[in-house]
Amino acid sequence: MNPFFAHLGLTAPIIQAPMAGVQNHRLAAAVCASGALGSLPAAMLSPAALQAELQALKAATTAAFNVNFFCHATPASDHTCEARWQQTLAPYYRELGLASECIPSGSGRVPFNHDSADVLEPFRPAVVSFHFGLPAPDLLARVKSWGSLVLSCATTVNEALWLQAHGVDAIIAQGLEAGGHRGMFLTEDLSTQMGIYALLPRTVQAVTVPVIAAGGMAQPANLQTVKALGAAGVQIGTAYLCSDEATTSTLHRAALLSPAVQHTALTNVFTGRPARGIVNRIMRELGAMSPLAPSFPLATAAMAPLRAAAEAQGRSDFSPLWAGQNAAHVQARPASQITHDFIAAWRE
Amino acid sequence: MNPFFAHLGLTAPIIQAPMAGVQNHRLAAAVCASGALGSLPAAMLSPAALQAELQALKAATTAAFNVNFFCHATPASDHTCEARWQQTLAPYYRELGLASECIPSGSGRVPFNHDSADVLEPFRPAVVSFHFGLPAPDLLARVKSWGSLVLSCATTVNEALWLQAHGVDAIIAQGLEAGGHRGMFLTEDLSTQMGIYALLPRTVQAVTVPVIAAGGMAQPANLQTVKALGAAGVQIGTAYLCSDEATTSTLHRAALLSPAVQHTALTNVFTGRPARGIVNRIMRELGAMSPLAPSFPLATAAMAPLRAAAEAQGRSDFSPLWAGQNAAHVQARPASQITHDFIAAWRE
Repeated sequence: MNPFFAHLGLTAPIIQAPMAGVQNHRLAAAVCASGALGSLPAAMLSPAALQAELQALKAATTAAFNVNFFCHATPASDHTCEARWQQTLAPYYRELGLASECIPSGSGRVPFNHDSADVLEPFRPAVVSFHFGLPAPDLLARVKSWGSLVLSCATTVNEALWLQAHGVDAIIAQGLEAGGHRGMFLTEDLSTQMGIYALLPRTVQAVTVPVIAAGGMAQPANLQTVKALGAAGVQIGTAYLCSDEATTSTLHRAALLSPAVQHTALTNVFTGRPARGIVNRIMRELGAMSPLAPSFPLATAAMAPLRAAAEAQGRSDFSPLWAGQNAAHVQARPASQITHDFIAAWRE
Repeated sequence: MNPFFAHLGLTAPIIQAPMAGVQNHRLAAAVCASGALGSLPAAMLSPAALQAELQALKAATTAAFNVNFFCHATPASDHTCEARWQQTLAPYYRELGLASECIPSGSGRVPFNHDSADVLEPFRPAVVSFHFGLPAPDLLARVKSWGSLVLSCATTVNEALWLQAHGVDAIIAQGLEAGGHRGMFLTEDLSTQMGIYALLPRTVQAVTVPVIAAGGMAQPANLQTVKALGAAGVQIGTAYLCSDEATTSTLHRAALLSPAVQHTALTNVFTGRPARGIVNRIMRELGAMSPLAPSFPLATAAMAPLRAAAEAQGRSDFSPLWAGQNAAHVQARPASQITHDFIAAWRE
């Protein structure tokens, strides 16, 4: 096993992908108990909620775990753009009988900052991973100062080189197949995004730090093949979405287990940044990539009331149904079983 | 070896991808002589040229070979759309001192038809492959009647199921990583297009005919991994683009061997259909996927004079620089050496 993973005491170099909105400490703890690296997604947690989750995770496991943060730049509020977005969504507000006063202020997504670091510090997690690049140097230095290993996502060879130059301990190569948000941070050009089959070998060649493959990993048989292409480990998300311990909604679970899962697309309509999810009504009607969506995470606010109202009616028309392109193997079962299958597949 | 390939007498189940515009019988013959399946691209050949190429190939090899045809529906001429396209390109015409009278009539790309079949029949090639679906049933029946095995490209599981139902002998699963034209024919929605890492296992599960992996194969090490995912064979294009026997232009070769090869994108500006090529000036300035491009292959005509004039000045600003996403291993050397390396990698 690569020293990065050996140091963590894992049975196999497998990371459960942090998935904000569909899991908490329970999934992370179950994965940790099974010999892989469980992850706690902190991107949508207030400092108080983060504290509570960390305490619960710490109480549930003595194993190494990962805490994940977003580190986007918060955009300035853009009233013109947000008004245009609300106007775009107005017919849906009318359809659902909602008033625009329902729109919450704020996006619920705050990048990693000194408040997060204050909460995190006493827990000294073995791994801290970031999405959308890395935090500012002083913040990164704080995380490293208490001994956490640092991970971040690269979607291009340039991003991998940048991350290595900025001191990450390992790089997650995120193939275009991956569900959820693209981790891209040096470019907004979707044409730069590569299938894991091209991205992984090119990244392995370009950097000296360990490279972890993500995207398309939902199938245990795929693990041997990325190992052969030079991956030091894998990060697996979609396969855990229907696990007993995930908090994935009933509607999201139903979509994952239906034929609809066959067609995912990158969409910015839920948050403002491209993320892969199962194609649903709002993606079809607005276009999956809408030029009207405000910058991440500002698109979120106006979509939230629609999602809530439709979900209350049993419809996922406005819900982000995150999933990767290779979700055919997703099953509803305990995270321990899922993890054991992947560990066996890696060690085969 | 899968019976499909065993029947062809190959050393390994490797197909040199037919690449219209950058190769003729010479590359096909060199590959055939080295133990893999050489391919002759017929999409841009008149019946007379096809006849000549087939004679030359037949004279050069006694081995099995593949002849490839496009089978798109020829769109009706759309003067409004073509005029708008010419207007879009007008600033470039002015820049290069070209008159719009330079625009050739016709696109130079005719789908497989009875004239092609008449030329092809006496040669009874071991394999005939199609791009963009399959020809009409009577035409397909003609090809099958003289014993040729029939191949076509699937870019989605639905397309694979359709091809199997329509009688292909094997399916090429074309991952999003692949260079050149996407073979998509049941959908125009680019969000349906998958990395080979997701497409291959899903296709292998869905169909009973052999599945051949394409896209990202330029690196010999990748062959073992698609074999592990169930591929019966591979189709390799980009790796041959700089081979001694290819007719790839000097400018295209230079781009393939330069850092520019790191950034490819799907673009419709050269032909009207999405195809992957190295990002160049016209893709950047018009946007790689332009809503203004006329239907395939009508976009070709107005681009041709620009390409010719710029190439004469040593610039590839308007040239399609087809390449896959994993082109870092492309080398200028004989096709026999390239083929031998891939055969060794498959048999490892």
